[in-house]
Amino acid sequence: MVLGHESAGIVEEVGDKVTTLKKGDRVTLEPGVPCRRCPRCREGKYNLCVDMAFAATPPYDGTLAKYYRLPEDFCYKIADHVPLEEAALVEPLSVGVHITKQADIKPGQSVVVFGAGPVGLLCMAVAKSFGATKIVAVDINEERLAFAQKYAATHAFRSQRVSPQENARILTEECDLGLGADAIIDATGAEPCIQTAIHAVRTGGTYVQGGMGKPDINFPIMAVCAKEINFRGSFRYGPGDYQLAVDLITSGSLSVKELITGRVKFEDAEQAFKDVHAAKGIKVIINGPE
Amino acid sequence: MVLGHESAGIVEEVGDKVTTLKKGDRVTLEPGVPCRRCPRCREGKYNLCVDMAFAATPPYDGTLAKYYRLPEDFCYKIADHVPLEEAALVEPLSVGVHITKQADIKPGQSVVVFGAGPVGLLCMAVAKSFGATKIVAVDINEERLAFAQKYAATHAFRSQRVSPQENARILTEECDLGLGADAIIDATGAEPCIQTAIHAVRTGGTYVQGGMGKPDINFPIMAVCAKEINFRGSFRYGPGDYQLAVDLITSGSLSVKELITGRVKFEDAEQAFKDVHAAKGIKVIINGPE
Amino acid sequence: MVLGHESAGIVEEVGDKVTTLKKGDRVTLEPGVPCRRCPRCREGKYNLCVDMAFAATPPYDGTLAKYYRLPEDFCYKIADHVPLEEAALVEPLSVGVHITKQADIKPGQSVVVFGAGPVGLLCMAVAKSFGATKIVAVDINEERLAFAQKYAATHAFRSQRVSPQENARILTEECDLGLGADAIIDATGAEPCIQTAIHAVRTGGTYVQGGMGKPDINFPIMAVCAKEINFRGSFRYGPGDYQLAVDLITSGSLSVKELITGRVKFEDAEQAFKDVHAAKGIKVIINGPE
Amino acid sequence: MVLGHESAGIVEEVGDKVTTLKKGDRVTLEPGVPCRRCPRCREGKYNLCVDMAFAATPPYDGTLAKYYRLPEDFCYKIADHVPLEEAALVEPLSVGVHITKQADIKPGQSVVVFGAGPVGLLCMAVAKSFGATKIVAVDINEERLAFAQKYAATHAFRSQRVSPQENARILTEECDLGLGADAIIDATGAEPCIQTAIHAVRTGGTYVQGGMGKPDINFPIMAVCAKEINFRGSFRYGPGDYQLAVDLITSGSLSVKELITGRVKFEDAEQAFKDVHAAKGIKVIINGPE
Repeated sequence: MVLGHESAGIVEEVGDKVTTLKKGDRVTLEPGVPCRRCPRCREGKYNLCVDMAFAATPPYDGTLAKYYRLPEDFCYKIADHVPLEEAALVEPLSVGVHITKQADIKPGQSVVVFGAGPVGLLCMAVAKSFGATKIVAVDINEERLAFAQKYAATHAFRSQRVSPQENARILTEECDLGLGADAIIDATGAEPCIQTAIHAVRTGGTYVQGGMGKPDINFPIMAVCAKEINFRGSFRYGPGDYQLAVDLITSGSLSVKELITGRVKFEDAEQAFKDVHAAKGIKVIINGPE
Repeated sequence: MVLGHESAGIVEEVGDKVTTLKKGDRVTLEPGVPCRRCPRCREGKYNLCVDMAFAATPPYDGTLAKYYRLPEDFCYKIADHVPLEEAALVEPLSVGVHITKQADIKPGQSVVVFGAGPVGLLCMAVAKSFGATKIVAVDINEERLAFAQKYAATHAFRSQRVSPQENARILTEECDLGLGADAIIDATGAEPCIQTAIHAVRTGGTYVQGGMGKPDINFPIMAVCAKEINFRGSFRYGPGDYQLAVDLITSGSLSVKELITGRVKFEDAEQAFKDVHAAKGIKVIINGPE
Repeated sequence: MVLGHESAGIVEEVGDKVTTLKKGDRVTLEPGVPCRRCPRCREGKYNLCVDMAFAATPPYDGTLAKYYRLPEDFCYKIADHVPLEEAALVEPLSVGVHITKQADIKPGQSVVVFGAGPVGLLCMAVAKSFGATKIVAVDINEERLAFAQKYAATHAFRSQRVSPQENARILTEECDLGLGADAIIDATGAEPCIQTAIHAVRTGGTYVQGGMGKPDINFPIMAVCAKEINFRGSFRYGPGDYQLAVDLITSGSLSVKELITGRVKFEDAEQAFKDVHAAKGIKVIINGPE
Repeated sequence: MVLGHESAGIVEEVGDKVTTLKKGDRVTLEPGVPCRRCPRCREGKYNLCVDMAFAATPPYDGTLAKYYRLPEDFCYKIADHVPLEEAALVEPLSVGVHITKQADIKPGQSVVVFGAGPVGLLCMAVAKSFGATKIVAVDINEERLAFAQKYAATHAFRSQRVSPQENARILTEECDLGLGADAIIDATGAEPCIQTAIHAVRTGGTYVQGGMGKPDINFPIMAVCAKEINFRGSFRYGPGDYQLAVDLITSGSLSVKELITGRVKFEDAEQAFKDVHAAKGIKVIINGPE
């Protein structure tokens, strides 16, 4: 099966009903096409469509190919000044947009993001563009924290090897979060992060599970109940997310180029996957085949 | 310390600034008074006020007394045709109203309620008055299920001793819930119920933790993430809940008298607590001291 | 051009990708098919699609025909016990569902509906099923008001020939609406009704323009500003509206048969249009051609 | 009666229950204290409280005085680096915050603001901090438009002396607004602006009446209906608005000092009112009496 779902390219051919695109247009590709007919699609949540045809998800091939076919409305034209390699990062940025929308962040609010990998970093940048005034990056890796602070975070917190309650208490105190953060996003999927996060959300605040991890964990459920936390899942991206990601990059209000840490030829794609898997770099661009 | 927080009575004396109540008025009492000044109070979520003075919660005495003092706006006048003993049940009904509001039930939706005790039953009745067209009661006790069906549920499901996934599958199939329930309320706090519930919510549906139980449990968190479930806590009741509970009883669109299974004198209150604790009856009315 | 957009029928033939319908199924028809691709369609507001193909709206023919072709997901199967003629009324009911959803009615609230014609009556019935406890019908025709009270309204108010402010004051007082109604729906499009309505909404309440009339009117705009009224338009019906209308009829929680005041043969359709236009009857069923 | 409701000062004395403020603290004053007990106050909309005691609104004196008494939670501490004269502008900024919140602006959206006076300018600045990517200032005064573009607008449009429909068409075309603006704020209260605005909102978009003017105007109501516009009023400011205004100034994400066009002694206050009334300058600071 062909891999790949973060990509951009140049239009080679269009169908005869296509009106907004033409050969030669530079576009970024939203890699999942929903059925457009089920209740979820019709109510504006197509990311939850059970008949979604998503790139690189069996039985559907991915985008790491010379040619890829996609409906017109899932191709987004990009401005001349946006390089194709940044356009390819619209995909992970859309993941960040969707997670951060789920967090329902309002201007002036505080948000804590667990995990300073690609998705976590992009959530921080989106939260900033949504008007969050305090953005705390949490990780165990000092380098990543330093990067996060340069990139989008206003505060950094290195997770301690203590109980989740105690970790939450220190985080709240050190970052001056008062009775807790307005919103917390987990971009790790790791049990201790999730536990700490729930204890660090304020009463009536929001928690979003963005990162994937073990299917079942030990979870402080009564804290969700008694603090009346809004706990929301997040799955891929839905209506408007891709367009907003394109707009944020185009207008310059958010920058993704800092996340590109390498570039390889199509033939060396396998090495790129290995490197990123070994946590060498953040995002590596694979150039298309000649 | 004095116990009690579900009560109704007759106004004995009013302060000189009180304009809407007078001696002799029959009222039901909302037993928690918030600070009215903190961010949660000001934004319309006073149930989340950290300075709440709640009856029978140390250091505050409860309402099981001859006289009780409460601000005017936490006393709700009741209509002549509503007996005081039904007015006392406005408190648990308000708990049900708040939980069911958190579940964001829309007319035509399906809702599954785990636990057919007082709170679960009241949630079913409220869900019905909110326009839910399928209301499934889940319990392990056949008698309670039979009562639930007579009272407000359209379907009953006896929980099986199988895995949560399998239990969810059978529930969904037997009650014809398609891809899962629109909303699920847990009124038990029990681990197997919570696990089953999460697996039985549809993609994009809502889950509310209404019942209290162990602080930490084994929890299928990735199902929340991947199905993008809205998981919400519920704590006591907030603005409008008490008034709506009063209105539902007054208009007759919801009945609570079926839940009154006994009446005792003030002197026998201790026995009433023991009986209910031993699951004898649903709600027992304690008459006030002479 | 062929007229007609309120209809039900029997499936005669299905395409080879259709899985949920078969020849002989009884269905009601949602008569407008959106493009499924524009931003409005994708965000769950397909009624606002500018490329909507709507029956009996040029250049699209209507449904008053022996055969009509429609995508699977715009055909709604109806239960055996629901007569075809009631199924045809799912269309106007869906209009009422959509308007009433726009009014954001919450259980326990008061709603005033201006106009006791078909749409107004259906709005009252839907408001009732949404849990409104006070439903005031306003009209100038006593017969219509009497019908409304028998059908779904809890109160009736005959509009007075006084200033809008004065009319609003009398309405509020007579129907015991306190500081004003929580929600008001206009189903007339008539200037004096709209003016009165705005003055009768409470601070922070909702007003929905459901009825069509003159494009421009004299309008008390500063009352909308100072009372911070939520004024919402309503156009046709969107995701979930048709299905909810079907469910309300199927479950018996709302009845439409009272609105059927006549039945004619296909050949006499023209007379039916004339009668209804002359306000003779509410809804007349036109039977299909042999 | 004493005038004034935009003010900041230094705490002179605190009551014995005050815990968060002390003599010498620099604070900005939210000049309206609600009853904290009515349904609107309890549901988080205290700006709609009918018993509001608002400065300079009979029978309540205003803040243009040496001493002013206010509850603790309506005094907002300001950071050392924020001058008192900017703190005084938190009041009009809060008006802008509230209007812009009513407009429900989402990142990436387009917003058109009619009127480039103080309130309009502040709405533009707030919309920018809320993530709007296209902000169009509309006025008839070229100087004001130039100022708006330097201050916060991305586009400026000089209103034409044509019909509202035609004006809306030109505005939409010149500013590349596609099918219309996502949100439009009127900060003028003027009939032709309001009419143009309604015709320039996109289907399903939002319109907010922020400016006060004639109580009744000729209004294109059917456009609101058919485009399903969300038309919302805006009155003063509510929970969180003042704090957000303080935060926006404190963090530097929004600047108000550009709006200060003059400073006068307390004795010359009358002249300041006259100047501003004659449209000389935007905001004039009146220094307190010795």
